Amino acid sequence: MKKPLILVTNDDGATAGGIRALVEVARELGEVVVVAPDSPQSGQGHAITLRDILRINPISIFEGIEAYECTGTPVDCVKLATNVALKGRKPDLCVSGINHGSNASLNILYSGTMSAAMEASMEGINSIGFSLLDFSADANFEHSKPFVKHIMQEVLTKGMENTKLLNVNIPKLPESEIKGIRICRQANANWNEDFVEAKDPMGRSYYWLTGVFENKDLGEDTDVWALDNGYVSVVPSGHDLTSYKAIDGLKGMEMGNTES
Amino acid sequence: MKKPLILVTNDDGATAGGIRALVEVARELGEVVVVAPDSPQSGQGHAITLRDILRINPISIFEGIEAYECTGTPVDCVKLATNVALKGRKPDLCVSGINHGSNASLNILYSGTMSAAMEASMEGINSIGFSLLDFSADANFEHSKPFVKHIMQEVLTKGMENTKLLNVNIPKLPESEIKGIRICRQANANWNEDFVEAKDPMGRSYYWLTGVFENKDLGEDTDVWALDNGYVSVVPSGHDLTSYKAIDGLKGMEMGNTES
Repeated sequence: MKKPLILVTNDDGATAGGIRALVEVARELGEVVVVAPDSPQSGQGHAITLRDILRINPISIFEGIEAYECTGTPVDCVKLATNVALKGRKPDLCVSGINHGSNASLNILYSGTMSAAMEASMEGINSIGFSLLDFSADANFEHSKPFVKHIMQEVLTKGMENTKLLNVNIPKLPESEIKGIRICRQANANWNEDFVEAKDPMGRSYYWLTGVFENKDLGEDTDVWALDNGYVSVVPSGHDLTSYKAIDGLKGMEMGNTES
Repeated sequence: MKKPLILVTNDDGATAGGIRALVEVARELGEVVVVAPDSPQSGQGHAITLRDILRINPISIFEGIEAYECTGTPVDCVKLATNVALKGRKPDLCVSGINHGSNASLNILYSGTMSAAMEASMEGINSIGFSLLDFSADANFEHSKPFVKHIMQEVLTKGMENTKLLNVNIPKLPESEIKGIRICRQANANWNEDFVEAKDPMGRSYYWLTGVFENKDLGEDTDVWALDNGYVSVVPSGHDLTSYKAIDGLKGMEMGNTES
């Protein structure tokens, strides 16, 4: 049987511990091609590079694996991967991460890891973004691997209906303490910003963006609940942002002949 | 009656023609504060600045209007606006744009204009992103103003149910040829990338990202249909990316005790 083609990417760059763990799992399941950004791209969301050039260069840091690094954002990487590096071959799966830190709830929107996976899904490729709830540079990804492998195998063998994108978050717990895997919805949480102000040597103010994550969504079907309770969370996700429930209530705003 | 407080932002910067048109409409309806990026930020999506400092400085290019420009992305601008510039005052409305070029369909995800408006909506502020289907730097925004004003007035006077964000796109047509305003859903379209390859003076390849917008979604309730048929499109939008229809089909992937 032909091995599936797996595109691996991330937002932390090819030298991050998380992508190495992901490559190690992916190579057990298929033929792997890595295309990662050449600089850290956390928080880049769905940004693309419109006013500058892009470059893509081969690297050889994963033994026996075809790999490239790109200038630009995680979404640029995926576009360069599918259009340039893979020379027209369509991956059977795109996996992004493993991110250092949570991408649960609304973090999916800010996350370069998830935007890379979303971009691949928008191109029709089944895609999974993986994140471990551990921000530290030396986070241990070993205990994540069995869950990463299980979810990748499920998608490769069974496919997915009504979605092409999974947002997977893994608690920072020993494997024996992880209770299982739950399919969830995105919690309706938010960030409470709290800029840190400082002064430069000229006495001018500048700011660091920081904040506190606040979840007032108490549903037990959310990703945040699952993670707080020791489960790996899996949220099937898309890119249709329409608020369907709001359409009827806004009809009073219409003008002209709106009967189609 | 107290005038509503209207936050105006964009992704093209304070010197763009589109934001000037938006300020001119907004000042007829309320007290205006402008916070715009200090450099063009098209395609920045929901990017935020995590590894660098941010600055915000007063500017005086709109007569009699409090205005600031920020380093960083459109989303950073909104965060700095609500947390620093407005000193805790909550806007009654945030408007972003008028963008030079379409943000219909999936362009909402790449757009700095829409991400700025979405960020404000995530902070609980009714928000509207406006775009004119004219990429040229000297685009004429005059014919857009009556539609912009109507939609802003509707939101200010009636509020919105089940959404806090509108994605408004305006056809590039004389006002007399615009047939009206339609409430729509986001068309399920995509971009067909087509990188342009070139060589630098050292003979090394580089790429420009470009592409062709393709819409295979033939529904007459979409934003693309409305625009193609001479209507202003209004899509109520949100930030919950969950594919609810996919949840049941993925239950086979669960592990452990998943009864809550």
